[in-house]
Amino acid sequence: MDAKSLIPFFSAKGVAIIGASSKPNKLSYGIVKNLTLYGYQGGIYPVNPGSAEILGLKCYPSVGEVPDPVDLAVIVLPAGQILQAIDDCAARGIRAVTVISGGFKELGEEGAALEKQVLALVKARGMRMIGPNCVGTMSLHSGLNTTFISGIPDAGGIGFLSQSGAVLGGVVDLVKGKGIGFAHFLSLGNEADVTETDVIEYLGADDATRVIAAYVEQIRDGQAFIQTARQVTRKKPIVLLKAGRSEEGARAVSSHTGSLAGSHAAYQAAFRQSGVIEVDKMGELFEVAQALALQHLPAGKRVALITNSGGPAALASDSLAVNGLRMADLSEATRTELRKILNPSAQVANPVDMLGGAEPHEYEAALRLAAADPGVDILVPILVPQALVNPVEVAQKIVAAAGETQKTVIACFVGDALVAEPRKVLHAGKVPMVVYPESVGTVLGAMIRYADWLSRLLEGADIFTAVDTNRAAEILGQQQPGSVLGEAQTRPLLAAYGIPLVAGSQAASPEEAAAAAVQLGFPVAMKIVSPDILHKSDFGGIRLNLKNKGEVEQAYLDLMKDTSLRKPGARLEGVLVEAMAPKGQEVIVGMRRDPGFGATMMFGMGGVFVELFKDVAFRIAPLTRDDAWEMIRSTRAGVLLGGYRGSEPADLEAVVDVILRLSQLSVDFPQISEIEVNPLFVFPRGQGALALDCRAILA
Amino acid sequence: MDAKSLIPFFSAKGVAIIGASSKPNKLSYGIVKNLTLYGYQGGIYPVNPGSAEILGLKCYPSVGEVPDPVDLAVIVLPAGQILQAIDDCAARGIRAVTVISGGFKELGEEGAALEKQVLALVKARGMRMIGPNCVGTMSLHSGLNTTFISGIPDAGGIGFLSQSGAVLGGVVDLVKGKGIGFAHFLSLGNEADVTETDVIEYLGADDATRVIAAYVEQIRDGQAFIQTARQVTRKKPIVLLKAGRSEEGARAVSSHTGSLAGSHAAYQAAFRQSGVIEVDKMGELFEVAQALALQHLPAGKRVALITNSGGPAALASDSLAVNGLRMADLSEATRTELRKILNPSAQVANPVDMLGGAEPHEYEAALRLAAADPGVDILVPILVPQALVNPVEVAQKIVAAAGETQKTVIACFVGDALVAEPRKVLHAGKVPMVVYPESVGTVLGAMIRYADWLSRLLEGADIFTAVDTNRAAEILGQQQPGSVLGEAQTRPLLAAYGIPLVAGSQAASPEEAAAAAVQLGFPVAMKIVSPDILHKSDFGGIRLNLKNKGEVEQAYLDLMKDTSLRKPGARLEGVLVEAMAPKGQEVIVGMRRDPGFGATMMFGMGGVFVELFKDVAFRIAPLTRDDAWEMIRSTRAGVLLGGYRGSEPADLEAVVDVILRLSQLSVDFPQISEIEVNPLFVFPRGQGALALDCRAILA
Repeated sequence: MDAKSLIPFFSAKGVAIIGASSKPNKLSYGIVKNLTLYGYQGGIYPVNPGSAEILGLKCYPSVGEVPDPVDLAVIVLPAGQILQAIDDCAARGIRAVTVISGGFKELGEEGAALEKQVLALVKARGMRMIGPNCVGTMSLHSGLNTTFISGIPDAGGIGFLSQSGAVLGGVVDLVKGKGIGFAHFLSLGNEADVTETDVIEYLGADDATRVIAAYVEQIRDGQAFIQTARQVTRKKPIVLLKAGRSEEGARAVSSHTGSLAGSHAAYQAAFRQSGVIEVDKMGELFEVAQALALQHLPAGKRVALITNSGGPAALASDSLAVNGLRMADLSEATRTELRKILNPSAQVANPVDMLGGAEPHEYEAALRLAAADPGVDILVPILVPQALVNPVEVAQKIVAAAGETQKTVIACFVGDALVAEPRKVLHAGKVPMVVYPESVGTVLGAMIRYADWLSRLLEGADIFTAVDTNRAAEILGQQQPGSVLGEAQTRPLLAAYGIPLVAGSQAASPEEAAAAAVQLGFPVAMKIVSPDILHKSDFGGIRLNLKNKGEVEQAYLDLMKDTSLRKPGARLEGVLVEAMAPKGQEVIVGMRRDPGFGATMMFGMGGVFVELFKDVAFRIAPLTRDDAWEMIRSTRAGVLLGGYRGSEPADLEAVVDVILRLSQLSVDFPQISEIEVNPLFVFPRGQGALALDCRAILA
Repeated sequence: MDAKSLIPFFSAKGVAIIGASSKPNKLSYGIVKNLTLYGYQGGIYPVNPGSAEILGLKCYPSVGEVPDPVDLAVIVLPAGQILQAIDDCAARGIRAVTVISGGFKELGEEGAALEKQVLALVKARGMRMIGPNCVGTMSLHSGLNTTFISGIPDAGGIGFLSQSGAVLGGVVDLVKGKGIGFAHFLSLGNEADVTETDVIEYLGADDATRVIAAYVEQIRDGQAFIQTARQVTRKKPIVLLKAGRSEEGARAVSSHTGSLAGSHAAYQAAFRQSGVIEVDKMGELFEVAQALALQHLPAGKRVALITNSGGPAALASDSLAVNGLRMADLSEATRTELRKILNPSAQVANPVDMLGGAEPHEYEAALRLAAADPGVDILVPILVPQALVNPVEVAQKIVAAAGETQKTVIACFVGDALVAEPRKVLHAGKVPMVVYPESVGTVLGAMIRYADWLSRLLEGADIFTAVDTNRAAEILGQQQPGSVLGEAQTRPLLAAYGIPLVAGSQAASPEEAAAAAVQLGFPVAMKIVSPDILHKSDFGGIRLNLKNKGEVEQAYLDLMKDTSLRKPGARLEGVLVEAMAPKGQEVIVGMRRDPGFGATMMFGMGGVFVELFKDVAFRIAPLTRDDAWEMIRSTRAGVLLGGYRGSEPADLEAVVDVILRLSQLSVDFPQISEIEVNPLFVFPRGQGALALDCRAILA
């Protein structure tokens, strides 16, 4: 993307409002008004042939007559007039348009067709467009506000983008007046041209934006998102709320966006691989973003709670445990100093409970002592406002102490009206404040996840050069689209990419089978080969432990007879004769192609572990070696195979290898829509892994 | 408990404030002031020898001189003067005292000793006491307010009790002015006399209380709590937030309450068995309580979302799925009617998206249509305030529609300042309102859990009469306190209570072992019997599949030799010779005695399932048959054993029987501190279960 093309949306020198109305009950009037209200210094040019002036501003009959400087147009016209308006803007030299109007894809086929025409025109004229069907954008530092939303949030470091205009409006009311600061605030509507990924890339390079927050319903180009987010998150955090995580939520999203959403498993995988911090509650989105915008990242997970009451501290401790943090052990020296300055009845272990009457100076002193303790990474002052202590003064002292430490400080002030002023003081002093003790852990957990991400090396995808791409292409070329490939047909594909297979070969007669068995060495297994029988085991199409030629020949005849009896007409292509592998730990490695993200790799232990315990991990291909390791480790299967409670560690390196090779095969051949190694037998460390069965489906 | 003894705390005819100060910066002054502020009609009598009047009220030199009527005293004196004050109250005929003062158990041993004295005096005088170390109580309908908290919540149907005074104060500020209505509001402090369970019992019978909400740090008498809560929850819901759920949180609680908390697994079990709705966030406590106080319980789980914007509806759908609810399918008739009244671009499937401009009358009409649809149990109108629609009017229309249906209605209005007035309208009209879409599912999920509880039959504990209590007593009588009983010693205990054991007997020589084997029939297993070897299998003290007398005798000699070589000095008491049981599904049934709740039963599949997947369930003994079934079904192990994906169902009835018999044994003999059957082999349905190994620890 040419990021420069988006500049006018964030810092236009002049804005034309096409379709501006002089009637105060019209949305376009609201837009003109908002442009005048918040200190915007550029030109404001209402365009409407029916008015001479609006809100004291000269109104132009057409955009062609708007004077310099003008580099952004906001269009609020009926859908049918948009094409003309865009053409007019192009003629006037305007290259950026925000289309507020609805009446496009969100209304069905006809609207979608019009949206396509609009997009084609925008592209033909070399323009960029936000929308259609959006509520505009705000840049809080410049006052550029093309929305009709009443009120604005405070200015600050959060860049927020929303795929829902209503959510954007609701959020303004939620955050207003709380000292939660925004750099930019964008509604992207139907994203016909400018997408969430474009904006994330832009905000990634924007100096005013310290943290990107996003409300997302759908990501259309998953691979582009991952590439962009992986780069941006090295520089600043992305906090994201995704709607449609459940099947029913996804249906709700797709019914109102008119498009098919990918699976949430794929979304989650993409977020993990690109360092995006996913939250699952609207209430958490800005708590987390604000904390990341204001505070230092934690250097560790040890938290000191400094409180005037035990209950909220206990609730905060609970939330720490759930979110992977822990209570710091305060040093004896720290405790001694605390004892000197606090009420003799105060408790100087962690939580430091200074009792209900704790004064502002006690908060400050206790925070300084805890900050100086090398066993503490994070400081959490907690206050429940008390009758005789001024909470604003407590906030001021917390700000003073926080300003002098590099450690992370998050305040929890329990209340509503009583904590409104203290919140402003804290936020102005760069100390994020939460209201509920349970939020302490949520916010810190998210910060820790981001810090962990930054500590990971950003390596490239692992590419195996010794794979036989030509052979794989040849095999796939022989297949019809939509084919289902059984084990016999899938094995050579896997072999071409170096995935270790149990030794075996196909045979079309009892004699061939016996000869194959002799070559493999006894005992052997025998499996029916038929395009009409995919679940060989369920069908009874497998014979194990055949010990000599006679058994092999007999098994061949039995299998053929059985099959033609039980499934008359099934196409029989012979059998696979395979060596009996020693028993290993069984895992599944697979790939399913997601409509939004492409090849999505899967790892799990199979059987009830995947189905009943949902112990399975996904990642989007191409995978880095680190991704593959992290994928395995994120499952309990990975813990088990890694040598749980003294059991012998399995050869996870070999599993990583299979995952990466299958990932590469899936990326190289988009016509494979599903492929699975199941089971993959994994042997003790150093002894490798073997694919015991496999199958694939072509697009 | 004699519930009448608590009446003065909730509706005193007159209150003496002992230690009342005339200085406005004193807490006791605040109490007197609060008693005058909120319409309390009883007598208010400040007691202080140093003042003549306080706030225009006559001040008495001693409680003895206070006139009638007076039946409650609030004591705000230094700890050292409390005993005298209580004695004085008793002499004046006051039988209820609320002790605000701190300086007791919360400060350590000395304070604890004083608290004991105070309690002894209270009991000796036939009085009841709330506190010490509390912030008093409020009864919102009568205006009786013995706290010094500034401000009060609205009056309504929630009875709230808190073991933390600070939490109580914080909550007032959180709920104030939001139309969240309370009947009573109590801080219980150290609970020396009146406990959370007493208050729950009282509120259970109180007409003004429709829902009980509780913030709890510790339940000392777990059995009493379960008994009381099981009764109360049949009449009204109890919603409870427990601090100290994690290990670190529990440590934080115990460090500030000065007492040992039981395990949270035991708490959770107790809550499930007694129908208590546990929430894990302070933010959810009153959302859930308010919804239960205002609305009808859902008759089913099918939810219709009626919204003016798609994003929040999608987020709400997500929260429904997570909380066990689902989206209703609207009938064709409903959709047709919706199409007639709504914007032609509106979406009439569920969620019903009426688009941004949706008017108040459209909300009303859509709600009425959805309410009339037999496929809908729950209605959720969602509004993100828009520039041109008055949200108060939307609230009024929702109230109108909600008033005419027996279906559950919960509103979600996204915002802060803009939704403050609508919230008051909704709450006054008995429609609970949440701000965040994610809360829709949390609140409805809690309501569904309560409805499910009401649908369960409240049966008594299952008592087996044919157990040999005397035999068990005799076996236990032979053991020293603190003994660890191995399999050989635990088997007769289990046998006495009818738990099926694999056939076996003890032998002290090769010949005895061979004779035992002949009697059992070959093959047999042999296990070492030694009080010094508890983990026989880890030690290598087990031999399996012994096929004849010779093998048995040899195995005996080998075991003895091995053992004395590898653990010289171990006391060898011979071996257990046991039949080889056919292979069954392995489960564990166990009991651990919790300090707060007593015998806590455990069920799980053992091994990695318990340790790594945490797939284990707990319930407090005595168990009902329903409890035992529900315990099994709450685990994934239960799903697996019940016949997962066409596998043969295991004999869960036999497992239930073992759980109930072990529960009864544990209740009958409190000296058993732990007992475990591990593994219990479970056979296909109708074929029973067998204990293959067991052990116990005595207190």
